[in-house]
Amino acid sequence: MTAYNAPLADMRFVLNELVDLDRLAALTGCGIDRGGLDHVLDEAGRFAAEVLAPLNGTGDAEGARLANGVVMTPNGFRKAYEAFVEGGWNGLSCPVELGGSALPRPVAMAVSEMWNAANMAWSLCPLLTQSGIGLLERHGNADQRRRYLRNLVHGTWTATMCLTEPQAGSDVGAVTTVAARRDGVYRLRGRKIFITYGDHDLAANVVHLVLARIEGATPGPRGLSLFIVPKVLVGTNGSLGAHNDLRVTRLERKLGIHGSPTCEMVFGEGEGAIAELVGNAGDGLPYMFTMMNNARLAVGLQGVAIAERAYQQARSYALERVQGRTPEGHPARLADHADVRRTLLIMRAEIEAIRGLAYVVAEQADLARLAEDQDERARALAVVDLLTPVVKAHATDVGFEIASRNLQIHGGAGYIEATGAAQHLRDIRIASIYEGTNGIQAQDLIRRKLAGQGGKTAQSFLALLAQSDTDLATVPELASLRQRLAEGVDALGGATRWMLATAARDMDSALAGASDYLRLFGLVAGGWVMATAAMRARYRLAAETAAPQDRGVYQAKLITARIYADRILPQAAALLGPATSGAVLLRAIGDEQL
Amino acid sequence: MTAYNAPLADMRFVLNELVDLDRLAALTGCGIDRGGLDHVLDEAGRFAAEVLAPLNGTGDAEGARLANGVVMTPNGFRKAYEAFVEGGWNGLSCPVELGGSALPRPVAMAVSEMWNAANMAWSLCPLLTQSGIGLLERHGNADQRRRYLRNLVHGTWTATMCLTEPQAGSDVGAVTTVAARRDGVYRLRGRKIFITYGDHDLAANVVHLVLARIEGATPGPRGLSLFIVPKVLVGTNGSLGAHNDLRVTRLERKLGIHGSPTCEMVFGEGEGAIAELVGNAGDGLPYMFTMMNNARLAVGLQGVAIAERAYQQARSYALERVQGRTPEGHPARLADHADVRRTLLIMRAEIEAIRGLAYVVAEQADLARLAEDQDERARALAVVDLLTPVVKAHATDVGFEIASRNLQIHGGAGYIEATGAAQHLRDIRIASIYEGTNGIQAQDLIRRKLAGQGGKTAQSFLALLAQSDTDLATVPELASLRQRLAEGVDALGGATRWMLATAARDMDSALAGASDYLRLFGLVAGGWVMATAAMRARYRLAAETAAPQDRGVYQAKLITARIYADRILPQAAALLGPATSGAVLLRAIGDEQL
Repeated sequence: MTAYNAPLADMRFVLNELVDLDRLAALTGCGIDRGGLDHVLDEAGRFAAEVLAPLNGTGDAEGARLANGVVMTPNGFRKAYEAFVEGGWNGLSCPVELGGSALPRPVAMAVSEMWNAANMAWSLCPLLTQSGIGLLERHGNADQRRRYLRNLVHGTWTATMCLTEPQAGSDVGAVTTVAARRDGVYRLRGRKIFITYGDHDLAANVVHLVLARIEGATPGPRGLSLFIVPKVLVGTNGSLGAHNDLRVTRLERKLGIHGSPTCEMVFGEGEGAIAELVGNAGDGLPYMFTMMNNARLAVGLQGVAIAERAYQQARSYALERVQGRTPEGHPARLADHADVRRTLLIMRAEIEAIRGLAYVVAEQADLARLAEDQDERARALAVVDLLTPVVKAHATDVGFEIASRNLQIHGGAGYIEATGAAQHLRDIRIASIYEGTNGIQAQDLIRRKLAGQGGKTAQSFLALLAQSDTDLATVPELASLRQRLAEGVDALGGATRWMLATAARDMDSALAGASDYLRLFGLVAGGWVMATAAMRARYRLAAETAAPQDRGVYQAKLITARIYADRILPQAAALLGPATSGAVLLRAIGDEQL
Repeated sequence: MTAYNAPLADMRFVLNELVDLDRLAALTGCGIDRGGLDHVLDEAGRFAAEVLAPLNGTGDAEGARLANGVVMTPNGFRKAYEAFVEGGWNGLSCPVELGGSALPRPVAMAVSEMWNAANMAWSLCPLLTQSGIGLLERHGNADQRRRYLRNLVHGTWTATMCLTEPQAGSDVGAVTTVAARRDGVYRLRGRKIFITYGDHDLAANVVHLVLARIEGATPGPRGLSLFIVPKVLVGTNGSLGAHNDLRVTRLERKLGIHGSPTCEMVFGEGEGAIAELVGNAGDGLPYMFTMMNNARLAVGLQGVAIAERAYQQARSYALERVQGRTPEGHPARLADHADVRRTLLIMRAEIEAIRGLAYVVAEQADLARLAEDQDERARALAVVDLLTPVVKAHATDVGFEIASRNLQIHGGAGYIEATGAAQHLRDIRIASIYEGTNGIQAQDLIRRKLAGQGGKTAQSFLALLAQSDTDLATVPELASLRQRLAEGVDALGGATRWMLATAARDMDSALAGASDYLRLFGLVAGGWVMATAAMRARYRLAAETAAPQDRGVYQAKLITARIYADRILPQAAALLGPATSGAVLLRAIGDEQL
């Protein structure tokens, strides 16, 4: 298995240059200064490299197992989880009053990127717990918060999201799990599938957050309510009681993330699983939606994380493996061959773009919650809403492509499981599917984020992009970046206008271009991030405010931004046509000719 | 596991409309008329669907095993192979005088596409035998041909290609396996890896074709010779004798094609494996090169095959699975959603393009061997040389992308192994690697096929593409296809001129754009195929020479060609920039900043 080293140089670049970390730290009230945050990154990098990364390959080979109704995670997962909890890592972005550290989200993103890069299968457990905390913090009543939150923040217990049923995947409104009130208590019955860490041996309790329909509720999404269904019942004083009426009936055999148990769960085979209603009956789906931005950004970040891990593996193989000769006739390493070096630098530039974009959106997420000014909060929330499907879908698609590039650089060796390249490809493939498939993200972008708001936020974002053009105009060295970005922004502007006009009268035609539009959006947003990064790097170098040891990083950023412009951005403008070609031809072929 | 039905309608379209089958049948002397060829396709389709396809999933789950030095293929593989041999399928494209059927290659391609779509792991065994037959037919002496060929053509024995060693992958000149002549016999010693069907339980003998260096030969590629090293020694009368000094030491655990044993082989642990020199000492690599076009086309065809299989699975799931609602509020199948229908039709259009291209190149391969006129043979060979790396790399990359699209259409279910979608993705991933990685194909295209011939064949091909424009100009309905194709042809022409000029003075810069250039080439060549197909379909429909039951196929072709133009071809022109951006920036980042 390969090593992982947290890419601290690029993470720090983003946190120092693209994000206003001091302001965020003040807003979150974490009480940690820049030096302290730096220390957090160093320590997280160490934990990821030394504790989590070594379990990645073995966890994949061993996989989670179900025996006698008990789920066991791979060897070492439990010990790593205990160390994680002891280290206080679980509550990194949780409020201080719940025992968390309230770190600014961009920093928490960097740390979470490390966990996922080191061991995505393992990291899914705290990732799900995070979503559960967010839900209960916002929608649980005082009693529920008191009994559940502290243990979840600490990591003593973990959480799951139980949405999917065999007939209800993307169509979550089709859920049929039912909760019936008997003697003042909800009893829940139903079958849920694809429940990540639905059971395991890492913690003392698993708190399931379950979407179900209260007996007699209306069909469809509006009849759904949210329930807490703990594996082990939790008493009024928070103590653990009897085992609830629920069990894991199957673990899925999956393409990847083998170490993460994906469970089929049955609730209420006996007298019914005891369930606590969260908030109002019928508001289950809106409650889930409040967590959606967070969860989707977290999944997008998995794309960044595995891309980075794959890049590191490709780089070290390409710098080591000797095959063939240079044009001058000397023995060449793979990295000396132009075609391989091109691939490495495309990977690198793409990663920098999606990382920058994800962290920048995370900053807006903090501002949406915490900015002093209400207008700023609203504006930030609109940006987060708009860009979340872009980050989720684009970063996961790019993550998969980069994992595939790593495999390719390894040649035949990449196809052999022992190398580990194939595992990254297998693991990351799920990220384009779960938490809303990337097709659903694209439709969300068109329906809710564009059409739903008359395109207001998109237009502001386009104005922000146009501002880059003015900045770039002052730097001759970045002329090609300026030109490619302008072409991309033009295409995105044109596609946006077309989408808004078309969605109003013919949603089918608009949705026929949704996936192409989202990719166009992601490529251009990435170009904007790289342009901003290049301008900052140039400023630092010119003003000589970059520390001597960092100058190489700033100089490299100027190059990777131009590589992004030359080799990646041109795809953007080419998506205008596909995004706006409508649905007529798609409907012209009948099912019998498909 | 999912069913497979040979896509006879589209195969027949290509064979009837894009290829001159009557002429080819006359040239090969197969003595089979159109009705007979049709019958072959029907029967092959039945064999693929009924015998091979049902073993695809089970073969994947079970995998090949090595126990006590013996390799065992999955349950059912042997029986299928026996039926295959009995049916006379193995020698389909071999000369009649060797017991083959001498079918025109486009027909043999169609049949081979069926085997690979039905069961790629199984099909690798006859695929390798085919390469061995080609080599011995061309370069073996009379005695070798007499003793080996008939059994290989019949399928009683199978063949392997033993090239790769741990230090010699893409760099085949680094081979260190050595043959020493003792008492008039070559004794061979060395270790080979990645040997497909290096041993198995399907046939009575395995004929290894091994690249090795005769003791004292010069280092590098020119010192390599080709040897026949049979698993069981073959006497002067062709009878089987003692076991040779070779064995399988390991099977690789791979991402996919689990049913196909990928062997590490050791030759000569004892007194040395008895080996027969093929042809001249030192000509081993040129001999291998004579088989390269065939083998690379066969691998490209695997891209077509798995793409088709994945498409069929996606289509049947999308037509069945109900999720969400139509814009009118009715329950919708996935195929009713514009985004999914778009994905299906992109898959469909891409498959038609790469299938057409592969079969058309196969026609040229027949003409290169058999055309009456020597100039025509030379021209056809030049076309095959030029287009082979394009078919190999582009069709395998597209095949992988399509397999991934199928998985995506399945959502969470696609990530579960039992569905079978993941297997197609895992299986096809190797095709971009073996038989020369796709990066090597791209370099071959630039170095040998363009620069090596001063661009002559590429210019003729571009002239052929320009001819399409004149044809398309007469059909208003195909205006967008004409425009997109013209843009693609312009970009390909510009990139070709740049490559020729650049390769002459700075090969490193040319090779930095090789992969983008190849993809540009593949997209435009596919567009040309679709344009030609659309013109033929339109002609048939207008002249009312299409049989009534085929009119739907011809009408659909007019639509898929336009979908290719609207949704796929625009990528082509966008590759001109990346293909011609050179190596300067790639070299501007030092290894320490990678």
